Amino acid sequence: MNSIGRVAIVGGTHGNEYSGIYLLKKWENSPDLIKRSTFKVETLLANANAFSENKRYVDMDLNRQFRPELLDDPLLANYEQSRAKVINLQLGPKGSSKTDFIIDLHNTTSNMGPTLILMRSDPFNTQLAGYVQSRMESAVILFEDHCDMKEQPFLCSISEQGVIIEVGPQPQSVLRQDILESMEEMTMHVLDFVNLYNLIQIPPLPSSIYAFRYVETLKLPEDEGGERRGMVHKNIQDNDFKCLKKGDPIFCLFDGNIINWEGDYEAYPHFINEAAYYDNNLAMSLAKKVEINVLLK
Amino acid sequence: MNSIGRVAIVGGTHGNEYSGIYLLKKWENSPDLIKRSTFKVETLLANANAFSENKRYVDMDLNRQFRPELLDDPLLANYEQSRAKVINLQLGPKGSSKTDFIIDLHNTTSNMGPTLILMRSDPFNTQLAGYVQSRMESAVILFEDHCDMKEQPFLCSISEQGVIIEVGPQPQSVLRQDILESMEEMTMHVLDFVNLYNLIQIPPLPSSIYAFRYVETLKLPEDEGGERRGMVHKNIQDNDFKCLKKGDPIFCLFDGNIINWEGDYEAYPHFINEAAYYDNNLAMSLAKKVEINVLLK
Repeated sequence: MNSIGRVAIVGGTHGNEYSGIYLLKKWENSPDLIKRSTFKVETLLANANAFSENKRYVDMDLNRQFRPELLDDPLLANYEQSRAKVINLQLGPKGSSKTDFIIDLHNTTSNMGPTLILMRSDPFNTQLAGYVQSRMESAVILFEDHCDMKEQPFLCSISEQGVIIEVGPQPQSVLRQDILESMEEMTMHVLDFVNLYNLIQIPPLPSSIYAFRYVETLKLPEDEGGERRGMVHKNIQDNDFKCLKKGDPIFCLFDGNIINWEGDYEAYPHFINEAAYYDNNLAMSLAKKVEINVLLK
Repeated sequence: MNSIGRVAIVGGTHGNEYSGIYLLKKWENSPDLIKRSTFKVETLLANANAFSENKRYVDMDLNRQFRPELLDDPLLANYEQSRAKVINLQLGPKGSSKTDFIIDLHNTTSNMGPTLILMRSDPFNTQLAGYVQSRMESAVILFEDHCDMKEQPFLCSISEQGVIIEVGPQPQSVLRQDILESMEEMTMHVLDFVNLYNLIQIPPLPSSIYAFRYVETLKLPEDEGGERRGMVHKNIQDNDFKCLKKGDPIFCLFDGNIINWEGDYEAYPHFINEAAYYDNNLAMSLAKKVEINVLLK
């Protein structure tokens, strides 16, 4: 990969995830904080209308609108579908993007700490993972590399390289100082890494790291009519990235019955009980824990 | 006071506070859980449209529409103003209510634990406070008796006696098993107390208890344009009902400066960083800690 000349930091892709939105305001007042010597950096408030209305989105989740066939379809014209096309013009276009690297800032109501979500497991990303983890003990690395990045629906997939910084727990429409600081710290490490990458000065990194790799998403128990008939079991509430073994309780039904995890692998739940995922009755995502080689270039 | 013949348990006064809403569903399926020998009990989902839309309210906060002059003004006709009038007909009317006691179930994003909010400090309420606290160690008692109950804007002020059960922390639009169970436990104790009160069988209670009494509400720091210029300081985040002394930090401005508490009393913040209060840029409420006599009848 060539050096990274243009970076975009995006906040407010979801209008009620406040940390990124307020960090953008901070950096507009103090632009030196995000400047580095080897690349240009710009910031973008992706969904201002949703922020004004204090909700995740106006019509539809903006962060699911960046698949090529969606961007190419002019009939998809609601607010977020339109915003996606405009952002794709502004930062992209996807496939031949003028922006080389996008950092998209998100919050979750789940207890995921500062999580760096990576779309590819190429040397750029594995070294980025190794660098961030070596600089920030609390950092969690999550690979969502189960499909080609170009097929991903996420905003950060517009550019050749892109990451999501996902920090929680923070309720929707709340600004917590600890969460804001954690997001800012991780963003600084990512910017530092890109700068060192361009300078070909990446410091020595561990040869391998532990990370998580997305496997599947679990739905909440539903009745025939699609109504929820249970909730996430309290034993796993807040235990994002803790190991779930076969037979462990995962749901408590409203009638008092318990549903256990019966999968055939050691699962690491995350996005546990994320508020925004209730739209689709999603309960949590599951990952496997993996050892990742931090390849040298 | 006469005995209590009719009790109403209300959930979903705010449509994204899920514990009460799902407890109502549970109790509709298992009505014996809320039945007691000496009174009739009914349940009410107060704002079904807000729940369907997965937000606090459609047009306006329903739990601020129950002042007499608002209920009496037919020109106040938006959705929540209309719902208030209908609920007042159904459970009230305020001032000569057919319902003797209302329990209104709420969640907060603040770390308030299970809090019983009382509108009056008469013997009924002080004994209720003593009873609940003696049955439930984690229970917090908060008096909001700074004005006559008839002047309160809350739904539970329709009836002669009424309380709010406020349990957190829970993000909006999330259902946590631990929070649901805590709300259910407190509700059971309140129902048990009312039954014992009717039976004139209140057990021996401590002669006094510690509780909190609402004093004032603090706003977030704002600039001239009304835009937030800071956030709740991380030192008090999640420290609801912990003592705040003169000189303690309460806000961190986005420029890095700190604002300290300069009040002339020992304050006990609560509703710290409550998501719903951002509408009005409210940061927290302050209470004083008080010793309350639990008077015998």
